[in-house]
Amino acid sequence: MKSFKDPIITLTTDFGLNDPFVGIMKGVMLGINPDLRFVDLSHQIEPQNILKAAYILGASYTYFPEKTIHLVVVDPGVGSERRGIIAVTEGYTFIAPDNGVLSPVFHDKTFLKVVEITERRFALPEISSTFHGRDIFAPAAAWLSVGTDTARFGREIRDYVILDLPKAHLNERDIIEGEIIYKDRFGNLISNISQEIFDRSLATSKNGSFNILIGSTDIKKINRFYAEGGEDEVSALFNSQELLEIYIHQKNASGVLNIDVGERIRVRFNYS
Amino acid sequence: MKSFKDPIITLTTDFGLNDPFVGIMKGVMLGINPDLRFVDLSHQIEPQNILKAAYILGASYTYFPEKTIHLVVVDPGVGSERRGIIAVTEGYTFIAPDNGVLSPVFHDKTFLKVVEITERRFALPEISSTFHGRDIFAPAAAWLSVGTDTARFGREIRDYVILDLPKAHLNERDIIEGEIIYKDRFGNLISNISQEIFDRSLATSKNGSFNILIGSTDIKKINRFYAEGGEDEVSALFNSQELLEIYIHQKNASGVLNIDVGERIRVRFNYS
Amino acid sequence: MKSFKDPIITLTTDFGLNDPFVGIMKGVMLGINPDLRFVDLSHQIEPQNILKAAYILGASYTYFPEKTIHLVVVDPGVGSERRGIIAVTEGYTFIAPDNGVLSPVFHDKTFLKVVEITERRFALPEISSTFHGRDIFAPAAAWLSVGTDTARFGREIRDYVILDLPKAHLNERDIIEGEIIYKDRFGNLISNISQEIFDRSLATSKNGSFNILIGSTDIKKINRFYAEGGEDEVSALFNSQELLEIYIHQKNASGVLNIDVGERIRVRFNYS
Repeated sequence: MKSFKDPIITLTTDFGLNDPFVGIMKGVMLGINPDLRFVDLSHQIEPQNILKAAYILGASYTYFPEKTIHLVVVDPGVGSERRGIIAVTEGYTFIAPDNGVLSPVFHDKTFLKVVEITERRFALPEISSTFHGRDIFAPAAAWLSVGTDTARFGREIRDYVILDLPKAHLNERDIIEGEIIYKDRFGNLISNISQEIFDRSLATSKNGSFNILIGSTDIKKINRFYAEGGEDEVSALFNSQELLEIYIHQKNASGVLNIDVGERIRVRFNYS
Repeated sequence: MKSFKDPIITLTTDFGLNDPFVGIMKGVMLGINPDLRFVDLSHQIEPQNILKAAYILGASYTYFPEKTIHLVVVDPGVGSERRGIIAVTEGYTFIAPDNGVLSPVFHDKTFLKVVEITERRFALPEISSTFHGRDIFAPAAAWLSVGTDTARFGREIRDYVILDLPKAHLNERDIIEGEIIYKDRFGNLISNISQEIFDRSLATSKNGSFNILIGSTDIKKINRFYAEGGEDEVSALFNSQELLEIYIHQKNASGVLNIDVGERIRVRFNYS
Repeated sequence: MKSFKDPIITLTTDFGLNDPFVGIMKGVMLGINPDLRFVDLSHQIEPQNILKAAYILGASYTYFPEKTIHLVVVDPGVGSERRGIIAVTEGYTFIAPDNGVLSPVFHDKTFLKVVEITERRFALPEISSTFHGRDIFAPAAAWLSVGTDTARFGREIRDYVILDLPKAHLNERDIIEGEIIYKDRFGNLISNISQEIFDRSLATSKNGSFNILIGSTDIKKINRFYAEGGEDEVSALFNSQELLEIYIHQKNASGVLNIDVGERIRVRFNYS
C-alpha cells in the first residue's frame, strides 16, 4: 500500500457536472500536490441535500485504501458562521463543512477526533464567501495529502454537528419500522432496515413467515439476487450494503410504485 | 509505452453518475493496485442495455494503449448463474459478465481466448449477490493490472455468449439493408452501414447515383463533414467510425425526424 | 511543482458523458504519453455553444498549476476550413478549434502567441472529417505534454477568431448595463457586472444606495454570502469570480424568475 506518494482524494459534492466547480477544485489541489489522484463519488447530489451526501459517503468510504482523504462539499451555509472541519478515523481523513454531512464518520468504531479549520495558511490567499470548496476545503485536502498534521489546521472540537439519521427500530408490537433512505439510478428503493435487525426478529418469530409492507404492497419473501424477481413483481432483497431494498426486476420500482425517499416501510413477523 | 507500472483501466457501466457505485469500484481497485489510472468510457448506458454497452466498447477500445484493461459492468443477471469472464486479445484484456457485452471483442482479428472467473481468491472476501462490479469484476481487473495470469482466474471456455449484433447486408434486389444502432448526444443517428459495403455497391452501380432512405426521407448525397449540410437539411456522412450517419447540421436529427435506434435504413443504387 | 513528468491536461467539450467520445480522446492521449493525468472541466456544454465553453474555460484555467495544458473541443465547423490552433500564455498552453472559444485567453495579460496546427506528424495517421478531437486536438495536446515545441505544429498566426464577449458598461446616464452570461446548476444567474465596475460607480455615488434591476425585480442590497438571503427573496452578491450574481437562497432563481442567459441587468446609483 502506498502512503503519501500518490495520495487519493475522493470528492462528493452537489456541484453537478455542467459547471466547472469540481474541475477548479481539482486544479487548486494539483497546484499544492501535483501527485494527487482523484476519485469522484458523486457530484449529482440534489443541491444542498446534506442527508443524501452523508448516505453516499457512508456507503462508500470504507472501500478505499487506508490514508484516502475524503472531501465533501455540500454547503448551503457557505460564507456564514458555519465551521469547516477535518474528521479523522484510524484509516481515513475527511474534510467538510460542519453541517452534519460527516455524520456516518462520527459513528465509525475507529473515529478519533474532529478539528476545526481556522488556520488561514492552508487556504487560498483570498477567500470568497461563496466557494469555500475552492478556497478552503480543496486546499486543506491537498495540504493534508502532503502530510500536514491535522493539529496545524486548528483546535479539536467536540460540538460538531451530527445529523439525526433515520434508524429502523422495533415498535411496541415488535414490527420493524423503517423508511426508504435512498433511491438509486435504477429506481431501486433502499431502506434503513439492516439484515441484522431483520435476522434478529426472524430468529424469534414463530414460523419464519413475514410481511414487508410498503405503500399498498405486501411482500412475503426475500430474494437473493435481482433476477429472482418475476416480471413486474414488486420484490425485496438485502443489497450490497446489507440493507433491505425494494425493486422490480429490470423496471424502475420508484416510478412504478410512485414511492420515493422518506416512504415508510414495515416488516411484520408472526410471533404467535 | 508503459507496461505494468501505471496501468490503465477503462470503465463502462450502466451505474450512472448519481450513485457512488463507480467510485466504490475504483476504491476497491486502488486498494489492490494503488498505481492504477482510470478512464471512464460511459456510465450513462440505459439500465441493462447490453447492446449499447457492446457498441460503446467496440467503438472505443482500440484507441487505448496496449495492455489497457477494459472493465464492463452491465449486468442484469447479477447473482444468478450467469458467469463472469475475462477475454484476451493480443493488445487488451476485458472483464465483464458473460452476457454478450464483449461481443465486439470476439470478432476482433487478434482475439485469443475467454477465461471463466471462478477463483475466489481474486474477489472481495464477501461476495454480495447484487454488486459483482464491486465484489468480483473490479478486484479481477485490479489483480490483472498487477500482472496476475488469466489462467489463475479459472479455466478457458468456448461457450461464452455472443450477441447477434445487427449487420447491414445486401438484399435480393441489391439494396443495402441496415438499421440505426446508436444515437449520440447531438441526436445524430448512426447506422450499421459501413463505408466498405457502401463503396462496394457504389463501384458496381451504373452512374454513382443512390438514394439513402430512412423514414420518409430520401438523401441523395454524402457529405464529408457536418457543416456541409444545409440548414434544416437531413444529411448523411460517413462518421469517424466509417459508419453511415444521418444528421441535421446544428440540430437534433433524432428529435426532428422522430427516429431512434432500431429504425430501418436502406441504400438503393442504380444498377441498370 | 512538477514539470513534464506527470503533466495535466484539462478537457472542456460539448461531447456529454453518454457517448464514449471523451474516453476515446483520453485513450489516444495516453497512447502518446502514458504519464498524463486528466481533469474534466465540463463536457455538458450545450452542443456547439462556443460562448459557454469560453466562459467555463475563462473561469477555470488560472486555478491550475503552471504548464497545465487546456484542451477545448466545441467544434461545429469540424472538417471545414476552420483551423486548429495552439495558444500560449506564460503559464499555460491551450488547444482548440479556431472559432473564438479561446477568447478569454487572448485577453490574458500574459498571452504570448497563437500557432496554427498544420503539421500532420502530430495527428493520428488517418484524420476523419468529423472527429478532430480524436484525430488532431487530442494528439496535439499529448505531444505538447511530452515537450514538443509549439513551433513544430505550424506557423504563428495573428488573425485568429476573437468572440465579442458581452461586457458591462456605463450608459449615458451612468447606469451600469450588463447581462446574464451564465446560469449554474443551482439556477444562480451570473452577470458580467464585475465588482470593480460596481465599486467605481459606488464610490462616486451620493449616498451609497443603488437599485439592481433585472426582469421585474429591484434589489437594493448586496449580500456577502448565500445564506444571508431571506426565504424566497431575490438576492444579489458578488460571487467567487467577483461577478454580480442573482440568486434565491436554496431555490432555483432562474426557474422562479423565468430568467436565463442573455437577460438584461442594470445597476442604477443615486448621484444627485
